[in-house]
Amino acid sequence: MQPTDVTPVWFMRQAGRYLPEYRTLRQKHSLLELCHKPELAAQITLQPVERLGVDAAILFADILLPFEPLGLGLSFSAGEGPQITRPIREAGQVLDLPPVDPATDLAYVIEAARAAARALPPHVPLIGFAGAPFTLASYAIEGGATRTFALTKRFMYTEPRAWHELMQRFAELVGGYLAAQARAGARALQLFDSWVGCLSPADYATYVFPHSQRALELAGASGVPVIHFGTDTATLLVDFARAGGDVIGVDWRVPLDVAWERVGSSPARAIQGNLDPVALLAPRPELERQVREVLAHAGGRPGHIFNLGHGVLPETPVEALQAVVEWVHGG
Amino acid sequence: MQPTDVTPVWFMRQAGRYLPEYRTLRQKHSLLELCHKPELAAQITLQPVERLGVDAAILFADILLPFEPLGLGLSFSAGEGPQITRPIREAGQVLDLPPVDPATDLAYVIEAARAAARALPPHVPLIGFAGAPFTLASYAIEGGATRTFALTKRFMYTEPRAWHELMQRFAELVGGYLAAQARAGARALQLFDSWVGCLSPADYATYVFPHSQRALELAGASGVPVIHFGTDTATLLVDFARAGGDVIGVDWRVPLDVAWERVGSSPARAIQGNLDPVALLAPRPELERQVREVLAHAGGRPGHIFNLGHGVLPETPVEALQAVVEWVHGG
Repeated sequence: MQPTDVTPVWFMRQAGRYLPEYRTLRQKHSLLELCHKPELAAQITLQPVERLGVDAAILFADILLPFEPLGLGLSFSAGEGPQITRPIREAGQVLDLPPVDPATDLAYVIEAARAAARALPPHVPLIGFAGAPFTLASYAIEGGATRTFALTKRFMYTEPRAWHELMQRFAELVGGYLAAQARAGARALQLFDSWVGCLSPADYATYVFPHSQRALELAGASGVPVIHFGTDTATLLVDFARAGGDVIGVDWRVPLDVAWERVGSSPARAIQGNLDPVALLAPRPELERQVREVLAHAGGRPGHIFNLGHGVLPETPVEALQAVVEWVHGG
Repeated sequence: MQPTDVTPVWFMRQAGRYLPEYRTLRQKHSLLELCHKPELAAQITLQPVERLGVDAAILFADILLPFEPLGLGLSFSAGEGPQITRPIREAGQVLDLPPVDPATDLAYVIEAARAAARALPPHVPLIGFAGAPFTLASYAIEGGATRTFALTKRFMYTEPRAWHELMQRFAELVGGYLAAQARAGARALQLFDSWVGCLSPADYATYVFPHSQRALELAGASGVPVIHFGTDTATLLVDFARAGGDVIGVDWRVPLDVAWERVGSSPARAIQGNLDPVALLAPRPELERQVREVLAHAGGRPGHIFNLGHGVLPETPVEALQAVVEWVHGG
């Protein structure tokens, strides 16, 4: 993450279902099987580098993998997303969670990171990642996708001690997990707080901030740059950035110049984002217009990493992503 | 909506499933049946006034009722929300939509408004409502709930003419529908743009603004105050308010003082909001703390209407809503 002549670009969920070579592998293996086999996960990690010419590879894994050693029970149903068999609904369950050592309990992820880092061309860094404490807690408590986050917030309001206990557990776990990925060769790390935008600024400050800060501190201690990403964070941005991260990732709801203003420039921050993933389904001229608008909002200043505002959708045409890479690289 | 000594309060979806007397009626009738029978809809409209002592009644209806005369096919499955049998997926379908006259094609809603307005005590105004063009278009195109709004945005980007055609249709329809509710006795009107927060500010300006403006203009011509509500509108607020509305409704993501600053005071605007509905599931002291925080952010200035940031959740205890009304009224 040094200043570069052209704006670097990669895409969240660039290793995934929109790629035919990924779908071929998926026909033979479940999502969890692909995650569990380091050689396959490393292979998938490399697929978009070859296809798209992106400037970074993000490790193929899932943010919920730590739920397996935590004994929460993790599965993925077709089209429905993750399902947690034993969600956390009582304060008592938090203290019963077993200790997890990422280096051993998630050794297959670390091994995949090592294999991918080794196989990548030297000019393409590997990005490791983990879910942020809030986003992990929301899945652990809801047991799956939610629109209202009612169970999560109720737990937070009703059992604040157990909530902070759980968030501390997740902060230590993902902080150590990210550091282990860096030791295995990841040259940047991203903390995904995908669902944090469901919170009011006051709730973010009280219930989330210290734990994100701790996770980011542990990750940052590894010496590689850390990207702190969330969606729907327009009203949280000042605290969100204060929690840490060398790079702040935002979605399409907040124009990059506005984001930069909120995030501040001291300490110097890079900004990552923020094309709406649905723009990739638009006709080419509209897509190009939107890509150029993102670049214009970034004002050509160093420290902009071009990305989407959230993950690539499965129905995205490969050619649309290829075109974006070309435009961002100055084509 | 004159200045008052105490902050007025009502709750979005205050007529609904959290009320035992509503659930009793629901056991005998489907949701659509309750909407179709003016005497039942009026009765449900009054239930929360008696139970909670709120300062306004909102008509019991559903924003998607106009889909029936439009021939889109509307049903509600248990727990899954609305389902549209014939969603709009092709540009050609837009021109084929039949003309709809709210006064006749939705006469049962107008009749419910008339009956409710007549039955309410004089100090409790009836609020009529309709879905905003964008939120209606998103349901019409997606065919049900969505997380990504991919079909909606793709249609918008790919078929801009048909999109604007559809939005114009919805703007005229809901504008006339709101005006008809005012003629039937509604003393305020709310336009619900519940899902508009999925858009970037640029897309809002291009694809939504003129149509919301038109709907609000038609509603405002009826002479009663109009509330313009959306969730997740932090980065849209300036344009959102410019589109119209005497009152701007915001969710818990944006503190009321920040909202007021963005919305501006010329023309004078009232603000409605913005307690997180999940706070109603919190223990009483935490709920009270959050209610007082909302009031503090409003700074006691005239023109604050206390409400939630979105609808009451079905699992909400009646007593929690009763307590909120008391606190807001100065208890």
